[in-house]
Amino acid sequence: MQKNDIQICYSPSQFPLFANDNAIVVVIDIFRATSAICTAFHYGVERMIPVATVEEAALYQQKGFLAAAERNGEKIDGFDFGNSPFSYMEERIKGQTIVLSTTNGTQAIHAARNAYKVVVGSFLNISLLSKWLIEQQRDVIFLCAGWKNKFNLEDSIYAGAVAQRLLDSERFISYCDSTLASRYLFEQGRKDLYAFLQHSAHRHRLHKLNLDKDIRYCLEPDQAPVIPVLSGEYLMKVN
Amino acid sequence: MQKNDIQICYSPSQFPLFANDNAIVVVIDIFRATSAICTAFHYGVERMIPVATVEEAALYQQKGFLAAAERNGEKIDGFDFGNSPFSYMEERIKGQTIVLSTTNGTQAIHAARNAYKVVVGSFLNISLLSKWLIEQQRDVIFLCAGWKNKFNLEDSIYAGAVAQRLLDSERFISYCDSTLASRYLFEQGRKDLYAFLQHSAHRHRLHKLNLDKDIRYCLEPDQAPVIPVLSGEYLMKVN
Repeated sequence: MQKNDIQICYSPSQFPLFANDNAIVVVIDIFRATSAICTAFHYGVERMIPVATVEEAALYQQKGFLAAAERNGEKIDGFDFGNSPFSYMEERIKGQTIVLSTTNGTQAIHAARNAYKVVVGSFLNISLLSKWLIEQQRDVIFLCAGWKNKFNLEDSIYAGAVAQRLLDSERFISYCDSTLASRYLFEQGRKDLYAFLQHSAHRHRLHKLNLDKDIRYCLEPDQAPVIPVLSGEYLMKVN
Repeated sequence: MQKNDIQICYSPSQFPLFANDNAIVVVIDIFRATSAICTAFHYGVERMIPVATVEEAALYQQKGFLAAAERNGEKIDGFDFGNSPFSYMEERIKGQTIVLSTTNGTQAIHAARNAYKVVVGSFLNISLLSKWLIEQQRDVIFLCAGWKNKFNLEDSIYAGAVAQRLLDSERFISYCDSTLASRYLFEQGRKDLYAFLQHSAHRHRLHKLNLDKDIRYCLEPDQAPVIPVLSGEYLMKVN
């Protein structure tokens, strides 16, 4: 059987180097955009519209949409939601369409938008997503949102965790050093990801904002078993 | 005492994100450009001229310079040297100026050329370079040449090894996740770097070219205790 290829891209600005028209792209922004997106779908949101700029999000809000906007870890005044997964655990989101703009995550979705398929990954959907990726028989590119186009630890570790599951299925192969490094890092940190990430840059940022509860939740596997997929300008649940 | 900052950049194409006019940039291409450069200076070369293209190297050669050119791991026909450190262990290089163009290393030097200072790092000069960096009281950016602008394992591990030495001096600090990840990777691999890198992409490439002897040499600490520094268009030894 022919095996499919796995690659891990550490920054949206590097994504053009990974050009592969047949690949499924998994967008990753563990703290917290893709964790928040998975949570929102798990709690009943119908569609999300990821937009690159705060201005676009505001325009949608003026038209009557619920809108979320975050920059540098904080919710922007005047919007309905920020980037905290907990803010999406609400009755009012059921069946709604929510527009979303975040520092890194929505930029990454935007960078990948022309790929064969774009799905959203987080620890909250890790088992379902891994199983689904194995079934698709397609190459997979993990696109880490990073922090303002720089490498971050939590996204790359998550990519390593899923890459390891795919390789364990024996239907995939990887020649890329970022996959190898991410698998090594996940292996080193897996026993206690919270402790392993304690010196990471973004965890520091969130800790200052009193968001330790968010961090712990974002590292919990399988709390939101849904797979958001990009369809045109919308994120929807995979059927 | 004010501490200096450490950052690690995993790709020449990402270097503009790390803009810092006061930093010393350490260019790293372990397999094999920066290992070859250190070896050449240790064996008596006077100056090296890193050029981005093979065509430039050929023009210098026509003017009478010794010239080295490598692409995809192999020496290009017609040139005096390729990228193997062993090819520079020769009497004829003493006092000479050698022009050099390689797949990744010379591109990285080119990307950093406007920095406050650009030096060349490899395991072959690791102790001397670390000591010198600690003495300079400047911020340090490690620029990994990578492979065609993608992450590679050996360059990032080396950056982690030096970063650890700088942090141990207590004169440096780092907030960047790539520094953290590189230190974790070095820590994991340090007992046997050769084994740790056995699945890495570039080691595979070199293994196919029967270059295991080069790989082992490039991972040996302190075999070429010199610090090449960029001065205008030339690399010279730090006085």
